[in-house]
Amino acid sequence: MRVTILSIGDELLSGKTVNTNANYISLVLDGLGCEIVKQVTVADRKNDILDCLTDLFKMPIDLILCTGGLGPTSDDITLDVIFSFFNSKKLFDDKYWIKLMNKFSNIGIPISKSHKKQAVVPDNGSIIPNSIGTARGFQFEKNKIVFIAMPGVPSEMQAMMNDTIIPMVKSKIVKSKYVATIRTTGAAETILYDLINKNNDDDNINIGYYPSVYGVDIRLVGKDLNKLNNIKENIANTVSDYFYTFSDHNLEEIVVNKLIKHQFTIATAESCTGGLIGNRITEVPGSSNVYKGSIVAYSNSVKINNLGIDKNNLEKYGAVSREIAGEMARQVRKTFNSKIGVSTTGIAGPGGGTKEKPIGLVYVALSSKEDLVIKKYNFHSNRNKNKIRSSQAVLKIIQDYCENYE
Amino acid sequence: MRVTILSIGDELLSGKTVNTNANYISLVLDGLGCEIVKQVTVADRKNDILDCLTDLFKMPIDLILCTGGLGPTSDDITLDVIFSFFNSKKLFDDKYWIKLMNKFSNIGIPISKSHKKQAVVPDNGSIIPNSIGTARGFQFEKNKIVFIAMPGVPSEMQAMMNDTIIPMVKSKIVKSKYVATIRTTGAAETILYDLINKNNDDDNINIGYYPSVYGVDIRLVGKDLNKLNNIKENIANTVSDYFYTFSDHNLEEIVVNKLIKHQFTIATAESCTGGLIGNRITEVPGSSNVYKGSIVAYSNSVKINNLGIDKNNLEKYGAVSREIAGEMARQVRKTFNSKIGVSTTGIAGPGGGTKEKPIGLVYVALSSKEDLVIKKYNFHSNRNKNKIRSSQAVLKIIQDYCENYE
Repeated sequence: MRVTILSIGDELLSGKTVNTNANYISLVLDGLGCEIVKQVTVADRKNDILDCLTDLFKMPIDLILCTGGLGPTSDDITLDVIFSFFNSKKLFDDKYWIKLMNKFSNIGIPISKSHKKQAVVPDNGSIIPNSIGTARGFQFEKNKIVFIAMPGVPSEMQAMMNDTIIPMVKSKIVKSKYVATIRTTGAAETILYDLINKNNDDDNINIGYYPSVYGVDIRLVGKDLNKLNNIKENIANTVSDYFYTFSDHNLEEIVVNKLIKHQFTIATAESCTGGLIGNRITEVPGSSNVYKGSIVAYSNSVKINNLGIDKNNLEKYGAVSREIAGEMARQVRKTFNSKIGVSTTGIAGPGGGTKEKPIGLVYVALSSKEDLVIKKYNFHSNRNKNKIRSSQAVLKIIQDYCENYE
Repeated sequence: MRVTILSIGDELLSGKTVNTNANYISLVLDGLGCEIVKQVTVADRKNDILDCLTDLFKMPIDLILCTGGLGPTSDDITLDVIFSFFNSKKLFDDKYWIKLMNKFSNIGIPISKSHKKQAVVPDNGSIIPNSIGTARGFQFEKNKIVFIAMPGVPSEMQAMMNDTIIPMVKSKIVKSKYVATIRTTGAAETILYDLINKNNDDDNINIGYYPSVYGVDIRLVGKDLNKLNNIKENIANTVSDYFYTFSDHNLEEIVVNKLIKHQFTIATAESCTGGLIGNRITEVPGSSNVYKGSIVAYSNSVKINNLGIDKNNLEKYGAVSREIAGEMARQVRKTFNSKIGVSTTGIAGPGGGTKEKPIGLVYVALSSKEDLVIKKYNFHSNRNKNKIRSSQAVLKIIQDYCENYE
């Protein structure tokens, strides 16, 4: 199934909003085996939308998914424009309007008159229900291409995808290609490329490299599922030092679920990451079963008075050192009485770098009763990325620790 | 100046990567007064790119900015395709190749042969330097439309924008419209709309509402700068309870800079936010001057043993309560010896909700020697959003506290 995604909204073209909707829809449909042919974004302006629709309906595609501009305010013009494009008459849905009024009165908020347009329905298309919001979607068909308009609010669009569009696509699609992803962290794209390229030359499998601050995802696409799986396993072995998953799960999800499986409690002592590791761990539902908490020891006084770091060692080695990283991990484990303690200490930048200890220098450590693992990195990057890379390095050593028990 | 943005990359269409590049370019050029007419994303596939270029060169535009596909690996095909589109001959830049080889040998990494294509230059276009990476950009002109190709790595693209493209656009543009943004947090789009709509009816100023989990940005666009500024001030007064800035700065930047200005030190005690507030504060350069650190008290044992919360109160009121929020803020302020202590405690979800204390119930508090502010929210959302909204609420009370001293 060939799909294009049309995003409507001045806020996208002005850069006020990142287009996470196009990304979400692409990710979901690609996973179902659709081919996303194009993503287009146009302004909340009648002629721009009409021109774009005219172009899209000339393409050899099966489905157009459109988001944005169905809200209650006056800058939301999508409804009028698509009704005009499909020559639809506007009917007023009294039942839905009563439902809307009841909904608002139940939560004690007066309904705004501007919501009235959300009760409009077309005479020649259908309505797509919105299980969590007030703006419903619309479906039309023309030249055998199905067109669906959804609201731009991400949670409402996602609910509509889950309730209606994904089941519809699943019922129509014939699987024509297979995709696999090998996710790595801790090595640059070219290092992986040089490692992999020697051993995995197969014209039928397309290999792509997708670097981000979290690591490099290696993506395989091919028509032969057996071949794809063989190459996938080969590559994962070749890059085993950096490999963390074939799945869509983030490293924090993988790590928290491993900790829960082994019933290992954990505490964090964060310096340069400032709370990021705790934040990532607590993004995962169920983390409260294993995560005790953190001491974010951003200042030396907190390191000494609250984390119990030896003042002399702090002076001798400096806060950013192998020794202090290890002591932080051990101390937080003892203080919070957890099975594992992990720590970060480093120079995030932009200030604070020296020749011996440059910006991007980070030590991470893991302490348990039996083990002490300390790793040194130089991430050569900016504050935000150095923090993320540090958190990724910590999560990877927790994963490695858990896997020793598997 | 009318601009379109062309993003090339399978990773964008498959949803593996969010298209932050299109967003960044839009934001920067919109700020300079350009009109971004369209954003298009196509696959790393020769015909798709050629078809798209053909379409774009028919549009009434001045500039096409293209990103992606200039890397060293085999899936990076943009260079070949654009050279073919502009009928360019490939010349090899020996000087640049020697420079590249030296660069790699200086940092002790063997250069990959795959980098050779990054030394290719066109005979009928020009090169755009890359101050931080190896892939240079290209510039061509056809039918009076300037076409520029940049690498897809965000930091390299941004460096190229800053070094070359922004100065070029600035030198050519004639300012034809003005833009202002009023940023708010803590109120829904429709509440703001109903408040604002009564008093600010002006056909010459376009008002748009851009909700996100951080709040609602209200964006004004108009040709008359005086009128725009008047309406901007009017609206900021109308929504003063929720307003936090006219600028592009995030709330954490505003708050940290206020804390630095007043020399107020701060410590955080986080329960439901799990480290997010510390993470946001430490995203801001200079935060180490005012931020002492955090106790992330995710478990009750840490609340009692490390944060010093009264065990009887914890049993009497429950961890998610007005009383414990206040105690957490006061305790962390005292323990870390800071001017201000702030706290969060709440039910992030998806588990843990009850009828009396539903998912999304959050208390935030600020304690200083003179003051204790406690606020209750019900964010009715999912784990990730409840955390972000809580952090936003805390940052807002810190801002309000600082502004009492201004």
